[in-house]
Parts: sequence; structure tokens; C-alpha cells
Amino acid sequence: MRVCIIGCGAIGSLFAAHLGRLDDVEVWAYDPYKEHVDAINANGLRLTGKSDFVAKLNARSDAAEIPSCELGIIAVKTLHTRAAMEATAAIFADGAVCSVQNGVGSEEIISEYVPRVITGTTFPAGHISAPGVCNQDTGGSTWIGPFAPKPASMEEVTKLADACKRAGLDVIAMEDARGAQWTKLIFNSASNAMGALTRLPHGVACDQPGVRLLMSALAKEGVAVADALGIVLDDDPDKMIDHGREVAYNHKPSMLQDVEAQRPTEVDALNAGIAAIGRDVGVPCPLNEAVTGMIKGLEHSWTLENQK
Amino acid sequence: MRVCIIGCGAIGSLFAAHLGRLDDVEVWAYDPYKEHVDAINANGLRLTGKSDFVAKLNARSDAAEIPSCELGIIAVKTLHTRAAMEATAAIFADGAVCSVQNGVGSEEIISEYVPRVITGTTFPAGHISAPGVCNQDTGGSTWIGPFAPKPASMEEVTKLADACKRAGLDVIAMEDARGAQWTKLIFNSASNAMGALTRLPHGVACDQPGVRLLMSALAKEGVAVADALGIVLDDDPDKMIDHGREVAYNHKPSMLQDVEAQRPTEVDALNAGIAAIGRDVGVPCPLNEAVTGMIKGLEHSWTLENQK
Repeated sequence: MRVCIIGCGAIGSLFAAHLGRLDDVEVWAYDPYKEHVDAINANGLRLTGKSDFVAKLNARSDAAEIPSCELGIIAVKTLHTRAAMEATAAIFADGAVCSVQNGVGSEEIISEYVPRVITGTTFPAGHISAPGVCNQDTGGSTWIGPFAPKPASMEEVTKLADACKRAGLDVIAMEDARGAQWTKLIFNSASNAMGALTRLPHGVACDQPGVRLLMSALAKEGVAVADALGIVLDDDPDKMIDHGREVAYNHKPSMLQDVEAQRPTEVDALNAGIAAIGRDVGVPCPLNEAVTGMIKGLEHSWTLENQK
Repeated sequence: MRVCIIGCGAIGSLFAAHLGRLDDVEVWAYDPYKEHVDAINANGLRLTGKSDFVAKLNARSDAAEIPSCELGIIAVKTLHTRAAMEATAAIFADGAVCSVQNGVGSEEIISEYVPRVITGTTFPAGHISAPGVCNQDTGGSTWIGPFAPKPASMEEVTKLADACKRAGLDVIAMEDARGAQWTKLIFNSASNAMGALTRLPHGVACDQPGVRLLMSALAKEGVAVADALGIVLDDDPDKMIDHGREVAYNHKPSMLQDVEAQRPTEVDALNAGIAAIGRDVGVPCPLNEAVTGMIKGLEHSWTLENQK
């Protein structure tokens, strides 16, 4: 089996390195970050932290150098999905691509470029600590299933999940993975938006009563949209918010990290994504709309000169 | 007539210096900022910018050194109202105090300390550029009227307005000054909250469609509360928002200045004030509640260590 990882940041690296340990899987990785690609080709891809090993694989910054693959895993930030698929679509002319990205909306874009799509939701996390090195700081499971509007077969989904499992990643194949996807989406929409706008780590934000109420209000809108879609959530997002406070008190949600680094956030795939689907199904999401407007305003502030 | 200005920051200095030009008014100023007080006593209080003159007056950091006054003007930031009144109440044992502060809620506090209260709304603005020196960058009118729950007499209100007018300040005495107060309050609640959360100057914020919509939505809640109170607004806050874009495109609302300096904001007197009164009169203000929660969260973030 030949697999291509699209986007070899933290999440992509976890999948690439694990699959790279299997003798019967040929792993390619596509990433525009040339120094990282060169380091991977020269020394292999090293995982540190919760995982600790080196895997040999083929990395490229020019997608034209990558052969046809039957399966892909896309792990770029959601706002780079279209550019990444433009670059790599030819690799999957007869393949299936699985998104392990945050939020909603990526699968629709991916399905414009490849014949079959898999929805995925993943919990492990980490960061690239040096070219060719990824530090994994968070473990957890991944749920994957056919993307209904342009589905991969369950055979393909299972094949990918089984390979990951043999490589040491807990990946679960499901007929309908939307429950897991929306559960994480709703949790993320609450935790990330409040982190981005208040600059508070998740647990500290939870301890501010006004902010905690807003997290619940954001989550409630998301749950109403999921209900309207007929999606059965895996867990109560409000309980996840409280659980997150216990296990990751000082964790800065990724959108807060983006705000601190003045990088574009994933708000389009999170709060704006929920609000847009809400509009489609007739469920108003005024608070998700509001935080979207504010976060986009904040992103715009970084483009101004003479800002303090 | 003997008048005491409570808080000799930019707004207090404008009133103190103007009144200090009149031969028949004895002006005292209370301010905890000792260097400013010493400079005023040594060299007088100088206005620059839109006004340009020096006035002689008596300034003190110890309120016990200030004699009884028949009228007071309080111009401290709203969150210092109680401390300022605790310090100066004895001066007004038989006097009336006029608030020219932002927002709502100060008059209620003032009325716990003095026999009669005047509501005021002022548009001029500036900043203390050096001890003893205030630069006035914005002109405009001031509206004052009896605070209904513990009213000064119209005779007192008119006496204060007339003195200010003779001194060169456009101060208008009204039987009911709440229309002016709420018009500015509602405008401020929209412009300041969006500035604080998006970090955008007023005009730039107006040009972000999502942010402009939120300003209207915030203003709409405030208008509904004013309606429930039977207050007739002087102007349409939405038009003021657009007008502000024309005349003060790059102006940073005061709450944005506070956020940049990591100082406590006046959100309690603006968005939280509207929301609290809304609760009392049965008008829900979910968006004003939401931005209050976020701005309080943001204020809390400045107290954390190890924040980037």
C-alpha cells in the first residue's frame, strides 16, 4: 500500500512516522517547508515526547515528484486545504483522501479534487521542534469514516485504520464518524474562540464565570446544529469543557496560539463553519456569528501599521 | 461660588482650567497624582491644543485640605468613583455633585455620598501631556440635568452651566439630560467594545462588515433598554457610528487604549451597565453580556504570569 501524507506538520508527522514503521506501507509526505523535507529525507522523521522513534520515509516539496497513492491523509491547517489539494490532487487520481483536520468544511473542498473522501477526527497533538523532528505532547484516538457526499468504501476506511493500528496509532473505523467530528468541533469552537478573544488558557478561562457561560452558550448553538443534522454526539461538549479544565488547565487553544503569533486562525472551520451550517439548516447561531466577526476583526488588526 | 473638581485628568482639567478663569468662582481640584497637583499649584493648570491658556487654581491630593464647596464636578474613571467619593464626600456636605463621566452607574454611587446629584455627558477629550498640562484634542458640548433619584435643583444645574458657559465651555442645562447620556452611552458601548476585542480603531472596525454588524447589534440592545426606560435619544446611535467613521477614522476608543496599556477598562459603566439595567427592565442584552464577559476575561489575562 502506498500512502501520501499531505502536510507534514505535527499531526501529519505523527501519522507519517507511525505508518513509516510498517514494512508493507510505502509512505510519502508532501510539505512546502523545504528544510523539514530535506531533514526527513536525510535523517528520517523523528518523533519525541509521547512517542520516541525514527521512521524512514520519502518527503517532497514538489508534489509532481510523488507517485500515485491509493490513500492520502491531509493534515494541513484548514485555511490551506484548497492550496494543498490543488498541488496534490493528481497523486490521488484513483485514491481516497482522509482529513484529520480541525472543524468542518475541509471534506467539501477535498471532494472537489479526489474521487473518494474520508472524514476524520484526531486528538493527538504536538509541534515541530526542529526540521525533521516532531514532539508529541498529547495522545488519544482518531475516528474515521466515509464522507457521505463522496464516500470512500468501508474497505478503504478499514484498511487505513488497520494500518495505523498496526503502526501504534489508535484509529477507529466507523460507518458514521460525524458524531466524533462534531463533538470535537463543538468543544473546539467554545474553547478556541474564548481563548482567542480573552487570551486565557483553557482552564483559566473556565474559571472566569462570564467566560465559562459563553463557552456553554457557544456549545449549545453547536449542539442545536448537530441535532438538526441528525448527528448523535459522542459526548456532552459541556462536560468536555470541564474535563479539559481538569487535564489541560494551562493549555492554550490553537486559536490563542495563532492570535499570539498573529497568524490567521481556523475560525472559518470552527465557529464560522458551525454558523454557516446553522444557516443552511435554519438554526440561528448568533454567538458563533459574533465571535467570528470579532476574530476576523482581530486578524485584520495585524495587517495595520502603527499598531502598538 | 466655590467649586471642586474631583479627578483632574483630561476632562477634569478642562473644566477646572476654564472655571479657573472666572473671577467670581473659586476653583479647587482634587487628584491623587501628586506631581500633577504640585505643578498646578506652582505654575497653574495649562491647557494646550484646542484651548490654549493657563488658569490659577488650588489643587490638593489630600481632600481634607479642601474647604466646603457648593458644587462639584467628578471626572474620574468610572471604576474609581467610589474611592473618589469616599475621599471627598465631606466637601459636599450641603452641595451638589455633577458627573461628567462615561456610561451609567456613577450617579447612583455619588448619591450615596452627597445630598444632590447632577447627570452629565461631555464630548470634549484630551490627555495629560505633562504634570500641570492638559492637551485638548476634541471639542464639543456637555449636557447636564438633575439626577432624578436624588436631584439637584434646576437652579443649581443652571448656575453650573452658566458659569461654564461664561468660561468658554458649551454646557447645556436640561430638565432631563438622560437622552444625551444614553445616546453617548450606546454609541460608546458599540465602538469601545469592538475596539477592545478586535484591536481596531473605530473607522477601520466599521469597515469590517462582521464587526460593523456587531456594533449595530450592540446599539440595538441599548436602544431597546433606553426605550423601556422612556428615554428619548438625541440621535440615532447607528448614524453616530457611521459619523464617527467619517470624522475619527483612526481614533482608538478609550477601551482599546486601556487594552493596549493593560489597564482596567470602563466596561462596567458601558456594556455591563446597559446589560444590568436591561435585566432590571426585562430587556435581554445577550450581546452586551457576551462582550462584557470577554472583556473581563481579557482584563484577567493581564494578571497571569508567563503570558506572551
